[in-house]
Amino acid sequence: MSRIAYVNGRYLPLHQASVNVEDRGYQFADGVYEVVLVAGGRPVDEVLHLDRLDRSLRELRMRPPMSRAALRNVLAEVARRNRLRHGLLYLQVTRGVARRDHAFPAPSVRPALVVTAKTLPPPPGDVARWATTAITHPDERWARCDIKSVALLPNALARQAAREQGANEAILIDAAGQVTEGASTTVWLVDDAGTLRTRRLDHAVLPGCTRAALIDLLHEVGIGFEERGCSLDELRRAREVFLTSASSYVRPVLRIDGRAVGDGQVGPVAARLFALFLNHIGGGDRAPPAPA
Amino acid sequence: MSRIAYVNGRYLPLHQASVNVEDRGYQFADGVYEVVLVAGGRPVDEVLHLDRLDRSLRELRMRPPMSRAALRNVLAEVARRNRLRHGLLYLQVTRGVARRDHAFPAPSVRPALVVTAKTLPPPPGDVARWATTAITHPDERWARCDIKSVALLPNALARQAAREQGANEAILIDAAGQVTEGASTTVWLVDDAGTLRTRRLDHAVLPGCTRAALIDLLHEVGIGFEERGCSLDELRRAREVFLTSASSYVRPVLRIDGRAVGDGQVGPVAARLFALFLNHIGGGDRAPPAPA
Repeated sequence: MSRIAYVNGRYLPLHQASVNVEDRGYQFADGVYEVVLVAGGRPVDEVLHLDRLDRSLRELRMRPPMSRAALRNVLAEVARRNRLRHGLLYLQVTRGVARRDHAFPAPSVRPALVVTAKTLPPPPGDVARWATTAITHPDERWARCDIKSVALLPNALARQAAREQGANEAILIDAAGQVTEGASTTVWLVDDAGTLRTRRLDHAVLPGCTRAALIDLLHEVGIGFEERGCSLDELRRAREVFLTSASSYVRPVLRIDGRAVGDGQVGPVAARLFALFLNHIGGGDRAPPAPA
Repeated sequence: MSRIAYVNGRYLPLHQASVNVEDRGYQFADGVYEVVLVAGGRPVDEVLHLDRLDRSLRELRMRPPMSRAALRNVLAEVARRNRLRHGLLYLQVTRGVARRDHAFPAPSVRPALVVTAKTLPPPPGDVARWATTAITHPDERWARCDIKSVALLPNALARQAAREQGANEAILIDAAGQVTEGASTTVWLVDDAGTLRTRRLDHAVLPGCTRAALIDLLHEVGIGFEERGCSLDELRRAREVFLTSASSYVRPVLRIDGRAVGDGQVGPVAARLFALFLNHIGGGDRAPPAPA
């Protein structure tokens, strides 16, 4: 089946889905995006993602391309046309098409919306099969990584560096030697004192939707944690390290820069949170169902 | 006349010139660009721009989309089809179209090339009519601004801030209080001791082609200068400040953050270098003419 994309009001086969060369997303990375997990045919944490999209748009002073209800309909329709049972919905909003000029175009220029879908295998039941590896890499990104913009070149370069070292993710380290986040994931650790931690939110990291959903689950089941960052040294001494994102769920990291994390096996905290999050996914979206 | 663009082998009316939504330039800002001035129908400093393009591609380990000779033919043909006498050629190379994944696609994926043209009025003969104004703005960009990538979101935001304050350019100030460069220009000053200066090249600034051409001219006519950066304080005390870029030529800055630079008039150094550079433009390209 040919994949179907939504582009500015039309549903098109992906190979015909295109944007003008003067779209500001193409020439200035002047756009934002979201990646929403679909599990069992239902979007997961959709409200969190759409809230974050609104925040990104506000921070860049871009207009939403349509109402939230209309956007949820488009997401549902792209999922339907792609027969998406398990996979990802990708949505990108840019400031639209205008003659090239760094400053914003006239308010009459309409923001552009693209939505695509990708089918993925569902997560394995056995967390050990979901474990992965990472490298550490300098964080060379801009000062506003809390905005989910498409200016992802440094993230792409970091992920490529990981792949070339036989790993799957790059954990980014800032100039002060502190962990910020992964190239497209939030980093968590169980430190050498046994405390579950993830960095607090600031301009250096994306406010992860899966991070937020997991924190809700931690509160629900009464697991303690601290919003406190860690240094590269602390990361290396951690008992457990795991990553979260819409497509990573809770993903244990067994090796960093070729060295075992803890005993090199999936730890009990990551295993428990993986199961907890899979249960959350199985429960589908917490938000009211999208209008038909 | 409808503007004509080149897109991956085809010359098309601009409104039909499009790229796939999974072009990595659109989703990851994984691309580089150049802006070449055309004066009197001839490209200015074309070899400098194509050398810098090669450097950007090398730094990002992207293949050139075609040979230099072929690329020069495309540039000449876009200029010809747009009847470009004075204006800009814009060229963008991205890592091509591939299913979304941060890491680089398979080597078989071909880089994408887009070229557009824009007619501009020729520079005024009177430098006072070319003078402009600037603001200062925090430099929030990534760590490799020496690569001319399309990850220009922070540059666009800075330029927009300038416009909203009634100015034309944003001079970027790093966390240490040092001037890096303008949002799309190189910054020069005549300091309070009368020394002509511009920042040395490093990873924080683009190696400007107009900067390089002007330095050649300075050597030719025996005007001294120093490659030495300046602080925000030094900028404010400067006798003269001016900007260089392919589309700015040598552009005096008369006010910064609303305050007069020097006596608020075009200074003698900027005036002389403006004339020198206009003469250089008038002389056309220093490189051998492009093949027909």
